[in-house]
Amino acid sequence: MKIELVATGDEIITGSITDTNSGEIAARLTAMGHEVVRIIAIGDDLAGIVGLLEECATRADAVICAGGLGPTSDDLTTEAAARAAGVELMLYEDAWEAIKERFARVNLPLAPTNKKQAILPAGSDILPNPIGTAPGYLLHIEGKPFFFAPGVPRELFLMFNEQILPMLSKLDTSPMAHASRSWRTFGYTESGLGDLLKDVAGTDDNLRLSFRASFPEIRVTLTAGGKNKAEAQAMLDKPARQVEDKIAQWTFSRDGSSLPEVVGDMLRKKGLKLAVAESCTGGLIGRMITDVAGSSDYFAGGVVAYLNNLKMKLLNVPESILREHGAVSEECAAAMAEGVRAATGVDVGLAVTGIAGPTGGAPEKPVGTVYIACSTKTGTEVRGGAWPRGDREQIRLLSAYAALDMVRKTI
Amino acid sequence: MKIELVATGDEIITGSITDTNSGEIAARLTAMGHEVVRIIAIGDDLAGIVGLLEECATRADAVICAGGLGPTSDDLTTEAAARAAGVELMLYEDAWEAIKERFARVNLPLAPTNKKQAILPAGSDILPNPIGTAPGYLLHIEGKPFFFAPGVPRELFLMFNEQILPMLSKLDTSPMAHASRSWRTFGYTESGLGDLLKDVAGTDDNLRLSFRASFPEIRVTLTAGGKNKAEAQAMLDKPARQVEDKIAQWTFSRDGSSLPEVVGDMLRKKGLKLAVAESCTGGLIGRMITDVAGSSDYFAGGVVAYLNNLKMKLLNVPESILREHGAVSEECAAAMAEGVRAATGVDVGLAVTGIAGPTGGAPEKPVGTVYIACSTKTGTEVRGGAWPRGDREQIRLLSAYAALDMVRKTI
Repeated sequence: MKIELVATGDEIITGSITDTNSGEIAARLTAMGHEVVRIIAIGDDLAGIVGLLEECATRADAVICAGGLGPTSDDLTTEAAARAAGVELMLYEDAWEAIKERFARVNLPLAPTNKKQAILPAGSDILPNPIGTAPGYLLHIEGKPFFFAPGVPRELFLMFNEQILPMLSKLDTSPMAHASRSWRTFGYTESGLGDLLKDVAGTDDNLRLSFRASFPEIRVTLTAGGKNKAEAQAMLDKPARQVEDKIAQWTFSRDGSSLPEVVGDMLRKKGLKLAVAESCTGGLIGRMITDVAGSSDYFAGGVVAYLNNLKMKLLNVPESILREHGAVSEECAAAMAEGVRAATGVDVGLAVTGIAGPTGGAPEKPVGTVYIACSTKTGTEVRGGAWPRGDREQIRLLSAYAALDMVRKTI
Repeated sequence: MKIELVATGDEIITGSITDTNSGEIAARLTAMGHEVVRIIAIGDDLAGIVGLLEECATRADAVICAGGLGPTSDDLTTEAAARAAGVELMLYEDAWEAIKERFARVNLPLAPTNKKQAILPAGSDILPNPIGTAPGYLLHIEGKPFFFAPGVPRELFLMFNEQILPMLSKLDTSPMAHASRSWRTFGYTESGLGDLLKDVAGTDDNLRLSFRASFPEIRVTLTAGGKNKAEAQAMLDKPARQVEDKIAQWTFSRDGSSLPEVVGDMLRKKGLKLAVAESCTGGLIGRMITDVAGSSDYFAGGVVAYLNNLKMKLLNVPESILREHGAVSEECAAAMAEGVRAATGVDVGLAVTGIAGPTGGAPEKPVGTVYIACSTKTGTEVRGGAWPRGDREQIRLLSAYAALDMVRKTI
């Protein structure tokens, strides 16, 4: 079923808030095998909403419309729905009783404007709202089902899960089920992965390969459509093996976990503790690791040694290394990793030192030069070089990812 | 001018990511007096995109279309644009040279697919992309200007600010000029600020007050429209003073600078150096400070003391404090701030310790309890309490903002 999502409200189209409702609804619909074809936001403009609803009726098999059901003058969705459907507005006594009951129950004075929320397009099927005042409703426009619900996230999501989604599933007469698999990768470009995988989906219309770049990651997703879930799953097997064979070396996660989660799980399973010594990343690696709840199981902390004297004071990097090789060197990275391991008493010491720019580069050490070291009881490994591109933020993110990826490959 | 925003990508309509680009663009357009009438997301579907672009041409005065300009097979926007405009695709040699130069400059191998990014609809005006590979372009469809730009936020926003917005302003034949002023605030709610400022714009149609929440900040923007820029500027004076009077205490920036930039400038001007001791924020504060280029002028680094033994080992927090008051206490925060100042020899020591959750809370110290301390040669100040709400990420962000804001108010 092709579904369109509509969100109404001046606050969305003026950019005061971001519409996060639609993405959440879209994810739930997609997971159930429905196809969202458009997500549309429109302001509190009566003629505009009427026109939009009429348009949607010509394209979509079903429409979910959130927002604009409140009692105030800028809540115009219901009037627009009636006009688009060519029906009158009428008082729904049951809905009005439910609103009155709700106000009495929560001991709030009823405003005259609240009656507006029970005045709905003739021919609507009421969708009760157990946790708010505005009921939703199902109305057919040009024969297509339109579900109207409040824009308040918890009311919308509850009504969606308990009422709209089951009704949609019943309406769906040609159920195409979908299955998908994803790979989160680091270390190769989107176009490079695209070239490697260009023959996987081939000309099969029921297979789709998509890429999502979220710097510095690329997520590769393979989706198959079939008569039922089992068929769709089965269709995935062979192409998924092809993808796996071609991109395994850059893949850090196949279950949606982030790189810090993957590294954290490995550390936890092996009973290892990690500490970091960060120079150019300035706390970014620690921040990424501690984004994960429960990271205290394996992360001790560390030192942000942004200035050189802190590398000596807190990490015992010998002054001779700084003098002879500089702070951005293999030698310094190794000494930092060993230093933070010694200072904190952990199993794994991870260090990053580099030049994030935009200034501070030199011909022999340009902006983007970064050294990463990982120290364990078996020794210290160092990698490094100059990132071929990127601004300050990108160089720092690349370095943090590369550092975590080095832990993943080392332990 | 009525403008529609289009975002393309399966990742948006399947709910894999939320389209935050459009909201940001909408806010900037609104501040400049343009009217965004629709924000539309559509998947990577060639016929669907063609249809959408044709529709937009019948309604809007201008369209900004983000995404789908990449080199892979699911990047379909350019082909759709050519079909909607009824023109052929052709190789733009200048754009191709720019792409090759960029790859050579950053020393990256050029994939054959990259040439696709220089094959654009005939009749396009190229919008150079100084920080990425895909150029944007301006193309007329049914006589209406369509601006195509990459979906990568930093590339999109740079091209929008430097190229698209000035071109839109030239196209705008309406006699209104706009001027605006913004306040970036932290520490008060959007509805609270809205109540305080509800009389400022009053009933004057040429004055508009808007709010954009970007957690944990609220940006307040006052826009005036006049016959020319000077008149619009003059109209701002009085209401801007009213805004200033009412919200100065929560305002950290009036020129668009971020909180870490504001704090950094203050430290630099006063010749002070800062070090941080982070527990629950895990490196986030250091990361925010070092996001700013040149932060080594005033930021020495610090200690991420995630586990208690690091608070003792690296910050000399007395074991008695941890035993008697716990790691999340005023006493521990003060000892951490003093400890990091002593260990690093800086002027200002900043410390944060708290419970970010989701676990680790207790009745007397619930999740969200955070203590912040700022230590200078004149003494150590501590603030703290429990954030009334928020998940792990929000509690950490709130704490980092509150810590930086404390430095701003202390020095």
